[in-house]
Amino acid sequence: MSSEFNLIYQHIAPLAGSRGDVVLGIGDDGAVVQPQQGKQVVVALDTLVEGRHFFVGQDAADIAYKSLAVNLSDLAAMGATPKWALLSLALPQSCATSTWFERFMTGWSDLAQQVDVALIGGDTTYSDTLTVSVTLMGEVKVGQAITRSGAQVGDDIWLSGSVGDAGLALTKLLAEQQLHAAIEQRLHRPTARVALGQALVGMATSAIDISDGLLADLGHLLKASQVGAVLRIEAMPFSVAVSEWVEQSGWEKPLTSGDDYELLFSASSQYRSQIQLLALALGLEISCIGKIAAQDQGLIITKEGKEQAIPSRKGFDHFASADIMKTS
Amino acid sequence: MSSEFNLIYQHIAPLAGSRGDVVLGIGDDGAVVQPQQGKQVVVALDTLVEGRHFFVGQDAADIAYKSLAVNLSDLAAMGATPKWALLSLALPQSCATSTWFERFMTGWSDLAQQVDVALIGGDTTYSDTLTVSVTLMGEVKVGQAITRSGAQVGDDIWLSGSVGDAGLALTKLLAEQQLHAAIEQRLHRPTARVALGQALVGMATSAIDISDGLLADLGHLLKASQVGAVLRIEAMPFSVAVSEWVEQSGWEKPLTSGDDYELLFSASSQYRSQIQLLALALGLEISCIGKIAAQDQGLIITKEGKEQAIPSRKGFDHFASADIMKTS
Repeated sequence: MSSEFNLIYQHIAPLAGSRGDVVLGIGDDGAVVQPQQGKQVVVALDTLVEGRHFFVGQDAADIAYKSLAVNLSDLAAMGATPKWALLSLALPQSCATSTWFERFMTGWSDLAQQVDVALIGGDTTYSDTLTVSVTLMGEVKVGQAITRSGAQVGDDIWLSGSVGDAGLALTKLLAEQQLHAAIEQRLHRPTARVALGQALVGMATSAIDISDGLLADLGHLLKASQVGAVLRIEAMPFSVAVSEWVEQSGWEKPLTSGDDYELLFSASSQYRSQIQLLALALGLEISCIGKIAAQDQGLIITKEGKEQAIPSRKGFDHFASADIMKTS
Repeated sequence: MSSEFNLIYQHIAPLAGSRGDVVLGIGDDGAVVQPQQGKQVVVALDTLVEGRHFFVGQDAADIAYKSLAVNLSDLAAMGATPKWALLSLALPQSCATSTWFERFMTGWSDLAQQVDVALIGGDTTYSDTLTVSVTLMGEVKVGQAITRSGAQVGDDIWLSGSVGDAGLALTKLLAEQQLHAAIEQRLHRPTARVALGQALVGMATSAIDISDGLLADLGHLLKASQVGAVLRIEAMPFSVAVSEWVEQSGWEKPLTSGDDYELLFSASSQYRSQIQLLALALGLEISCIGKIAAQDQGLIITKEGKEQAIPSRKGFDHFASADIMKTS
């Protein structure tokens, strides 16, 4: 057996986790899982690239945690229950060490155990650029997946957690400025809103996770639903640190920086108190930040009674800033 | 909508293909598919890295074709019917062009249409190293997946197609020597044995696809099944070109070079004529190359009546030769 397979088996297999519905896990040509009757399978695939989605030299535990979290966030936005993951590692020789793999699997299982996700397969190969690709599969009841396309005029727009922390952390790290550990954590170890996503099934008319920036992702949702929106800056859930940032630099930055991994969703106003109770039950801030409007209104931001129309291209563009995490 | 999304939608979505069991395809946070009742889901993930699994500057159509083919080959080895694919592209700016995407999708849909696989989602981002990661999902009847672990002492060992063509092509290309287009094709556009894999369900006791080299992959199968094997060199299906290579350099090279993507499987001798009929029906050579033996025998090669024991580490090692496709 080659050293490649030895590395995988030695470090990955023992921390892969298990589930009763995994018929065949790591170690064959493919994995086999048993979906439940009456369910549909939901699947997402997200790739993180060194120097782009995480810093060169970053703790492997953070890289693993984030690579799973961003996919959990996608499944949360669909209202799905995450179950099975596949992991592709393309890594430089400097990472093909026991220490690196141990750190990686520590970060992975920290999160995977919380959400009961089993690692069922994947692939390891060399590359000059460390690239981590995760495929995450889960389930929803037939016809119950939440999509981007169901928002209705008059719906409330809700946002979980706070917005802009990851963008602030990135800005400060790139400028080599001090920042609070909790804010830095929001960049390296985002919290996927898995329980919230599942609870929103039957209540949310549409949902998306905030990965490219609130305005960009809201733009995708509005386009898919063929509607417009009015957002209230006063209602935005800014942390104390981000509020200071807004005072200095305006509200645009936190709403156009990426990596928040919060859920943005729409729901009829009849669910307002139910959503507030859900927030209490989950111990999670959920803020009503605006309303869905007719498509011809586009996207409007209100602040202190004044309205501002937002052009459709604002947000984080993965192809526009290729070296975002390349520090000197 | 960012240029990233524009590129994806413009070139990928129209050639993604469709299937009735795709509930939600490209364009949301996740894709949704409807598995059939009485089936289990089989999934494989394989990543191809530039300079390692394909040449720098290689035709994007070949890269796409191969990235799907290697995953089809994995599902074939499980006896599964392939259905849904996800595609992750991490690409240099030089590839983020309409021309590149068009070529890529041409190669992809050449193969995807043949096997009725729908592209249901994925991810595109920049990277200095072109990296293509494909997740392929399919189905088998409950409990019917073929694994590596069921080979029984006395079973015949079978191999589809011919072995060593891709290794010969790579050797010749690296040495900048002439080679037959059909042999080069075997490296760039491997043929996954999808129909054969499905036909082997209920007949093969074990199967694996040849990606790391025949001896290495047979080694994985023997280890998983806790058995040994005797192979006959005289029975090996070598093409004319590979036969010449064997005369010059011995039989070790074609049996230890990778990228063949043929199916190696074991079956009780009672199925011998049935497998020969299957070969005729599929228009595919299927050769009986040896027999499963007791584990303590290890792996033995016979040639002209002489026996040779094979150490367990022979084969293609992805971590041992990091720059295999880096030409000058």
